[in-house]
Amino acid sequence: MNNLNEKEKMLSGELYDANDAALVEERQRSKDLCFRYNQTQPSKMKERKGIIKTLFGKTEKMFLIEQPFYCDYGYNIEIGENFYTNVNVVILDCAKVTFGDNVFIAPNCGFYTVNHPLDVETRNKGLEYAKPITVGNNVWIGAGCSILPGVTIGDNVVIGAGSVVVKDIPSNVLAVGNPCKVIKEI
Amino acid sequence: MNNLNEKEKMLSGELYDANDAALVEERQRSKDLCFRYNQTQPSKMKERKGIIKTLFGKTEKMFLIEQPFYCDYGYNIEIGENFYTNVNVVILDCAKVTFGDNVFIAPNCGFYTVNHPLDVETRNKGLEYAKPITVGNNVWIGAGCSILPGVTIGDNVVIGAGSVVVKDIPSNVLAVGNPCKVIKEI
Amino acid sequence: MNNLNEKEKMLSGELYDANDAALVEERQRSKDLCFRYNQTQPSKMKERKGIIKTLFGKTEKMFLIEQPFYCDYGYNIEIGENFYTNVNVVILDCAKVTFGDNVFIAPNCGFYTVNHPLDVETRNKGLEYAKPITVGNNVWIGAGCSILPGVTIGDNVVIGAGSVVVKDIPSNVLAVGNPCKVIKEI
Repeated sequence: MNNLNEKEKMLSGELYDANDAALVEERQRSKDLCFRYNQTQPSKMKERKGIIKTLFGKTEKMFLIEQPFYCDYGYNIEIGENFYTNVNVVILDCAKVTFGDNVFIAPNCGFYTVNHPLDVETRNKGLEYAKPITVGNNVWIGAGCSILPGVTIGDNVVIGAGSVVVKDIPSNVLAVGNPCKVIKEI
Repeated sequence: MNNLNEKEKMLSGELYDANDAALVEERQRSKDLCFRYNQTQPSKMKERKGIIKTLFGKTEKMFLIEQPFYCDYGYNIEIGENFYTNVNVVILDCAKVTFGDNVFIAPNCGFYTVNHPLDVETRNKGLEYAKPITVGNNVWIGAGCSILPGVTIGDNVVIGAGSVVVKDIPSNVLAVGNPCKVIKEI
Repeated sequence: MNNLNEKEKMLSGELYDANDAALVEERQRSKDLCFRYNQTQPSKMKERKGIIKTLFGKTEKMFLIEQPFYCDYGYNIEIGENFYTNVNVVILDCAKVTFGDNVFIAPNCGFYTVNHPLDVETRNKGLEYAKPITVGNNVWIGAGCSILPGVTIGDNVVIGAGSVVVKDIPSNVLAVGNPCKVIKEI
């Protein structure tokens, strides 16, 4: 394990140095692409699609990401068919963030894979660790939600507006609140 | 009823197809205007006022909308005299959003008129429905609040920061929380 | 006390007129600088650092403020060594906002020093008052938090995502929720 570089540590869930030069450069590239995306006139749909494809590496055919949109690396985001995010969505994709088909995300939502250590000394060195987020098929996430590191959301789920999702959410439910809890089956 | 077009359905609270070509074009226009607004240097106040008047169609004399600001159509937003929104306010105005006089809105608030169906099959077709939001006179909405479809907020109301307003709020109260509840009369 | 101008009233915690010409001009300048900052390509790090130094007046050596970033005056923000804010952070610095060393702030957080009066008549005149916010050393604030006027956060603190911090938080704790409460010592 000691032979892993910082990126490999990041992707395998270990503590890694966020100030590693190679990672800084990758984030720079991603942030410049997001910037270019957010500076593109909204109606220039073809140009916008091209930038997202470059950023994510690969997409399905049908998707729309409203501007502005922010992410850390881009290549750790995997979207399914018929993917939609409204304005101001943030994805900190230090670990993998995977979305199924037919996922709709409302404004001001965030998907945060990265955690800082509770221990001050470790945290102040810039060491952090990331855990993947997985969202199933047919999911609608309401406005202003935060999805925290390691969370899996099942299929056919609705997350109510203003939720902070700290634990897994099973399939076929409506869940809501801070912290987010299942309130009924769908 | 079957003769209504998608826009008429949207405005009358029925299920409508958000991917309807005419609606897509109207959102495109609105998003291009918001983009132009958000790309205008803040101190160019006259230019900014002009763009908002074009976007909303009609305003009172005294208003200030800090940048960035985002909305879906613009023409469904009606503001009273002495209207103020701070940075990063989002209004999804698929149904009418009406503000009285002397309304102050803090940063990162959202007014969301649009709902997606809980039923997966209907939702995945892009069908949705919208309910109007009404805010009375002399209302101050604190930072980071979400106002959900169909909500009416009375006169002389203060909504505390971080609230998710899912039900009507009567006049002359201070209300706060997720979900937002009245905590005292003013 | 009657001889104080509006800026002096603002800085001393008294009711002041936010529409005062001198204050409007100072906010204009700050907003133009934030605009220029947010319009700068992310990888142009040297240019970005220069704008923040102009905006804040003075900084320590090591800091990074992701774009976009928004504030009201800039000169009321004091940051310690090793300061980091992620995307979409808002600081309404009508009163002083002071950060210690090693402070990390996640996306979509807001620091709001300004309060509007509950009394409608006073509020509608544009009168408001501000209370300072102080954040200690070695503090990590999770995503989507709102920090309200007058709050002091101690040293070695972690604030969980989605918190609304309405009261002081002592040192050496993990605190979370709306309203934010201590849940354990660290």
